[in-house]
Amino acid sequence: MPFIPTKYNHPDFNKPPLSEAPFATFRKVTEDGVLPVDYHATSVYPEYFHLEKAGWRLLEHSRMDCGVVLGKDGSLQAKEFRHIEKGNLVACGRRENGEDGIFVHANGFEPLEQSHDKFSFRTHVSRETSFSVDYDELYNLLNYERENGFILWVLGPAVAFDRDAREAMVRLIDNGFAHGLLAGNGLAVHDLEGALYGTALGREIYSKHPAPLGHYNHLDTINRINAAGSIKDAVRKELVQEGIMHAATKRSIPYVLAGSIRDDGPLPDVIGDVYLAQDKMRSLAQRATTVIALATQLHAIATGNMTPSYQVTEDGHVRPVYFYTVDMSEFVINKLANRGSLTARTILTNVQDFVVTLAHGLQQRQGC
Amino acid sequence: MPFIPTKYNHPDFNKPPLSEAPFATFRKVTEDGVLPVDYHATSVYPEYFHLEKAGWRLLEHSRMDCGVVLGKDGSLQAKEFRHIEKGNLVACGRRENGEDGIFVHANGFEPLEQSHDKFSFRTHVSRETSFSVDYDELYNLLNYERENGFILWVLGPAVAFDRDAREAMVRLIDNGFAHGLLAGNGLAVHDLEGALYGTALGREIYSKHPAPLGHYNHLDTINRINAAGSIKDAVRKELVQEGIMHAATKRSIPYVLAGSIRDDGPLPDVIGDVYLAQDKMRSLAQRATTVIALATQLHAIATGNMTPSYQVTEDGHVRPVYFYTVDMSEFVINKLANRGSLTARTILTNVQDFVVTLAHGLQQRQGC
Amino acid sequence: MPFIPTKYNHPDFNKPPLSEAPFATFRKVTEDGVLPVDYHATSVYPEYFHLEKAGWRLLEHSRMDCGVVLGKDGSLQAKEFRHIEKGNLVACGRRENGEDGIFVHANGFEPLEQSHDKFSFRTHVSRETSFSVDYDELYNLLNYERENGFILWVLGPAVAFDRDAREAMVRLIDNGFAHGLLAGNGLAVHDLEGALYGTALGREIYSKHPAPLGHYNHLDTINRINAAGSIKDAVRKELVQEGIMHAATKRSIPYVLAGSIRDDGPLPDVIGDVYLAQDKMRSLAQRATTVIALATQLHAIATGNMTPSYQVTEDGHVRPVYFYTVDMSEFVINKLANRGSLTARTILTNVQDFVVTLAHGLQQRQGC
Amino acid sequence: MPFIPTKYNHPDFNKPPLSEAPFATFRKVTEDGVLPVDYHATSVYPEYFHLEKAGWRLLEHSRMDCGVVLGKDGSLQAKEFRHIEKGNLVACGRRENGEDGIFVHANGFEPLEQSHDKFSFRTHVSRETSFSVDYDELYNLLNYERENGFILWVLGPAVAFDRDAREAMVRLIDNGFAHGLLAGNGLAVHDLEGALYGTALGREIYSKHPAPLGHYNHLDTINRINAAGSIKDAVRKELVQEGIMHAATKRSIPYVLAGSIRDDGPLPDVIGDVYLAQDKMRSLAQRATTVIALATQLHAIATGNMTPSYQVTEDGHVRPVYFYTVDMSEFVINKLANRGSLTARTILTNVQDFVVTLAHGLQQRQGC
Repeated sequence: MPFIPTKYNHPDFNKPPLSEAPFATFRKVTEDGVLPVDYHATSVYPEYFHLEKAGWRLLEHSRMDCGVVLGKDGSLQAKEFRHIEKGNLVACGRRENGEDGIFVHANGFEPLEQSHDKFSFRTHVSRETSFSVDYDELYNLLNYERENGFILWVLGPAVAFDRDAREAMVRLIDNGFAHGLLAGNGLAVHDLEGALYGTALGREIYSKHPAPLGHYNHLDTINRINAAGSIKDAVRKELVQEGIMHAATKRSIPYVLAGSIRDDGPLPDVIGDVYLAQDKMRSLAQRATTVIALATQLHAIATGNMTPSYQVTEDGHVRPVYFYTVDMSEFVINKLANRGSLTARTILTNVQDFVVTLAHGLQQRQGC
Repeated sequence: MPFIPTKYNHPDFNKPPLSEAPFATFRKVTEDGVLPVDYHATSVYPEYFHLEKAGWRLLEHSRMDCGVVLGKDGSLQAKEFRHIEKGNLVACGRRENGEDGIFVHANGFEPLEQSHDKFSFRTHVSRETSFSVDYDELYNLLNYERENGFILWVLGPAVAFDRDAREAMVRLIDNGFAHGLLAGNGLAVHDLEGALYGTALGREIYSKHPAPLGHYNHLDTINRINAAGSIKDAVRKELVQEGIMHAATKRSIPYVLAGSIRDDGPLPDVIGDVYLAQDKMRSLAQRATTVIALATQLHAIATGNMTPSYQVTEDGHVRPVYFYTVDMSEFVINKLANRGSLTARTILTNVQDFVVTLAHGLQQRQGC
Repeated sequence: MPFIPTKYNHPDFNKPPLSEAPFATFRKVTEDGVLPVDYHATSVYPEYFHLEKAGWRLLEHSRMDCGVVLGKDGSLQAKEFRHIEKGNLVACGRRENGEDGIFVHANGFEPLEQSHDKFSFRTHVSRETSFSVDYDELYNLLNYERENGFILWVLGPAVAFDRDAREAMVRLIDNGFAHGLLAGNGLAVHDLEGALYGTALGREIYSKHPAPLGHYNHLDTINRINAAGSIKDAVRKELVQEGIMHAATKRSIPYVLAGSIRDDGPLPDVIGDVYLAQDKMRSLAQRATTVIALATQLHAIATGNMTPSYQVTEDGHVRPVYFYTVDMSEFVINKLANRGSLTARTILTNVQDFVVTLAHGLQQRQGC
Repeated sequence: MPFIPTKYNHPDFNKPPLSEAPFATFRKVTEDGVLPVDYHATSVYPEYFHLEKAGWRLLEHSRMDCGVVLGKDGSLQAKEFRHIEKGNLVACGRRENGEDGIFVHANGFEPLEQSHDKFSFRTHVSRETSFSVDYDELYNLLNYERENGFILWVLGPAVAFDRDAREAMVRLIDNGFAHGLLAGNGLAVHDLEGALYGTALGREIYSKHPAPLGHYNHLDTINRINAAGSIKDAVRKELVQEGIMHAATKRSIPYVLAGSIRDDGPLPDVIGDVYLAQDKMRSLAQRATTVIALATQLHAIATGNMTPSYQVTEDGHVRPVYFYTVDMSEFVINKLANRGSLTARTILTNVQDFVVTLAHGLQQRQGC
């Protein structure tokens, strides 16, 4: 059956209390990066601001924990504290039900007849949860999103360690199921080591046999990409001829490699300033309609923070953003699931099996 | 490529120190269940006993932590303490290199040129280990064992919770890839609940939607099987028409359901005396040439304890027993991997994905 | 501040729907172990049955997943399926609100003004939850229970592996903070190996240095206790002079050692029939007012199944049973927390540190 | 007993093969950040370079995965790839036994009679390992290091979530057991939220009760510190009057707060460029004689990468660097333990209990 995104229930601004709500208050910032004491902070949900000129207005391209800046043109922007500047007009008021002219629409994507049972269930996902239906829904979703959405992958290094998983990921990219990639130096280096030496951290990627002096392969990979100039250059010069980064580069899939204090090297393409990296990640996240985060606590939480639960499409419709996290640990999964959104799903398994199963399942449905 | 079991390196009894070893000492037991102070305890490895009449003799059907009893006919038997009786002659001596007439052949299945690197690697399996080659080896192994061996499955309840995994397990049984099953009350009840109600612990097995009064399904299943008399009766009467227990029953795959203090009910087929259950489990374990233990710490460790690392085939060859454990937790896996045998392999993943991937991989190789 | 058990809110049987409820239906069992199709199954909560002669009557000594048998004397008993006999009168009806003459009082211990926020919080315990207040509450609770309750410990083997933890556990027993112990063969053998050899699984218990032939100590311990006759005999004969089992034996703390298929030996005191073991465990569990389960998934879940959330004291008051589980894994803890009772608490940590901290904290409060 | 650091076994350069080793080769770098193809990469171990003028020379202030640059003055420096500049002379050669004029002294701190048994043991630490002796050794170590070393703490956010743990950490700082701190934005914000609001992520830090609008406390903390200018300013202005950051600031303990893509805010003191942060972290790491990393995978691995296994003291002695990691997960611990150094120790527990037990244990020994 074809996929249909969950319908959005628009708030009814003609009914009280919203029909009687005051206009939202905006106060002027007096110092860069410092907000008025009663600033309003954004959530992942659709939020509406009651403006004097424009009436109730939905904040587009939101993310968690931002201030909301009113532009001279009447536009609204969710800005991280570090981007708030002296003179900005920032929305103030902390009541989320309209009493401050701000309405946070937390249940816009819930079926109106939502039962309590169902909701409580979602909060108790464990390794013993049945995931067959989640896979099937994901096949439908991705086939839909390939044409109609923007699928953003967040990749931990484990995806590049296993031959079958790496090949499956490449197949997903080649078949149009990836519109953007977020990762770190580790994923890229491991994948490129696979391309240059056929190893992962010095072990032959399939047989796991240690290569002679194999522990140098990791650093040698960085050194050779540095010499080539960039990953793109390395692909162009045919130094790198296969793998995830190769596929993404060949198909011009935009990617952001964000730096961390754990990095060796780093590769020339890695962004060392994490806040600049956040900005670039967010520029992809705010286009995303489906996010799939695989085995990376750091990048998955970071992406979760900057991805709203909704997206406004070009034709003005509000649709949900589906956010999947796949990990082995209930602890990590729970951290990510606490976004409080029905559109967040989690699958507890090894990402190697996940990617292989996913690529195979899509293929069976003629998608891949 | 067709599978060939690792060749066994027989010990050379013509070389010192074995050629000069004394005969093994056997002492008479004076009280049921109490061994002489210097009794010899078995390991998982092939062990040879130097007998006055028969020379060096391999202990067949061994298991860990047993005494070795010399029969009147010169036979050797590994017996659990609880089965040692007054009057038994028990092997004594704790040096394992032949000096006490006992030789523990710990590296009979290792390639003679075994490098240190390789060995150290096997001890560090984690969720980030690459498992593609393990799957491929397993496909080869199971295709070989289907005709030439005895494949014993040890199943935790999680296998029965997921529709695809349950169906894949049934397919494996139907296609000849299971010669025996070990499990507990939980696995059987969950699977039978699936057959009777289409639910697992009260949730529809595929959609996960809660069934009305679904929490009764678990107990109702037990009650109805009790009324039918046994699982076999329930299958015969067509009360149970599908699932893992159904497939095993239909194909006369022997199974042992061992009781635990955690059991509800129990089902009539469950053995309440755990030491009797151990005996019955061991009667299957001692036929096993490959063991696959899925997501069950209790049953996997129990089976590991009673499974030797080798098997003597009907034509007198010594071959390895392959022991796979699949679990989500490094902690559990490490507990199981400490058998100190190269034939023990571990895969860190969700067993749902494991079983589905396995059944699909075997099918692709025309096996399944 | 002194501890006061949460007050119980008795149901009001004079208000509808309870005042208008019919009498409960009891049907005769026609075959041993098989209940009428619409039998009522017990929960962990206080349950009331509307009897023709006696009016609303509270089921005492309940446990999960039992049938309720009406005695000739009008008494009510929660019986496991395996104890239900032909001729028994079993309560029938599955509506829990009184409509079938049965009332399940799920929120008897909740503050009447219970907020939703608070409840949702308790379900999300993780390793990052703050536990200072839980320790403090536990000190108060145990000081109260020492005089007024029955503290039941459920011990996994890890408690006996560490010198400080083992000594702290002994101190807790010696100071009156343990009224019963539930454990398996493993805990007892490891503890007794400590007493006989100063090792745990062959390593010196403090320094962790391997003892010569230390892997025999485990089996030698079993063998020597078998020779002595029982743990009690071994203590009497001064073979065992210290440790947890020694302290419990000396102070006549009742304990149940339940068998499992994983057991070596076993020790003579271990009960091999798990359903008999369940009965003996339940005879302690039904006296318990506080249960503390440490690092044992099997025994903790088993005990949780047989422990109600309430206890009727000698003077007829209804009080809560406090159930603590301490473990390293969110997965295990979540399994245990799903009792759905506010009286279940969990602490995520290593039980070694937990026991040491607990004994020290009680001592500081002059308790220990 | 007083603590004595493990003695260092100096290599004997007068014996072959070292006595016959050639001089190390240094090649000129032709492009910033790109090393000659056969560059030598550093390990965590002491490494010696055979120089024409100075003979065998120990590399001081090493770290993993660096190139080694020979200065004009004959000095040797371990430099990350990103700091290697055109014109640098970089050590080349990958044989570590002296054949290339480079000697990696991997076992300088091992007792010469080191047995195999002992070594294999250290690699199998799990939650069931006994840790009493590790605590005792740590008390001795820290009492020694307080006067004679440099104790560097690496703190994950969990330390600031619990009242008792936070107070214990402050006590450790106040009593001289901390000479440096490494952490991220999260730890600092959580700790400062505790100081400003008495909450952690909006819950009262002890009772865990949710504060009204408590989810704003996290962001409000960042906003108020931003307004104050810096943590130091906030302490000076008495906005922040207690807690970990307060204690460190008051006692002028140097700290580095490294940024990550997960950060909210960030606080003004956080370093956004991760490679600059690495440099600052390393400037503390290279002074460290003991490192204790608590519940932070990212910062612990980062610090592990930049900390050598040895330190050259002011008077020219070579001593070990002790590296402790404390975490709940075998997976994380194993990642960190793979430094291959005997001086790396791990404790599996909740860091809350660890810090409380540690502070209490040191106090009992009159240290704290």
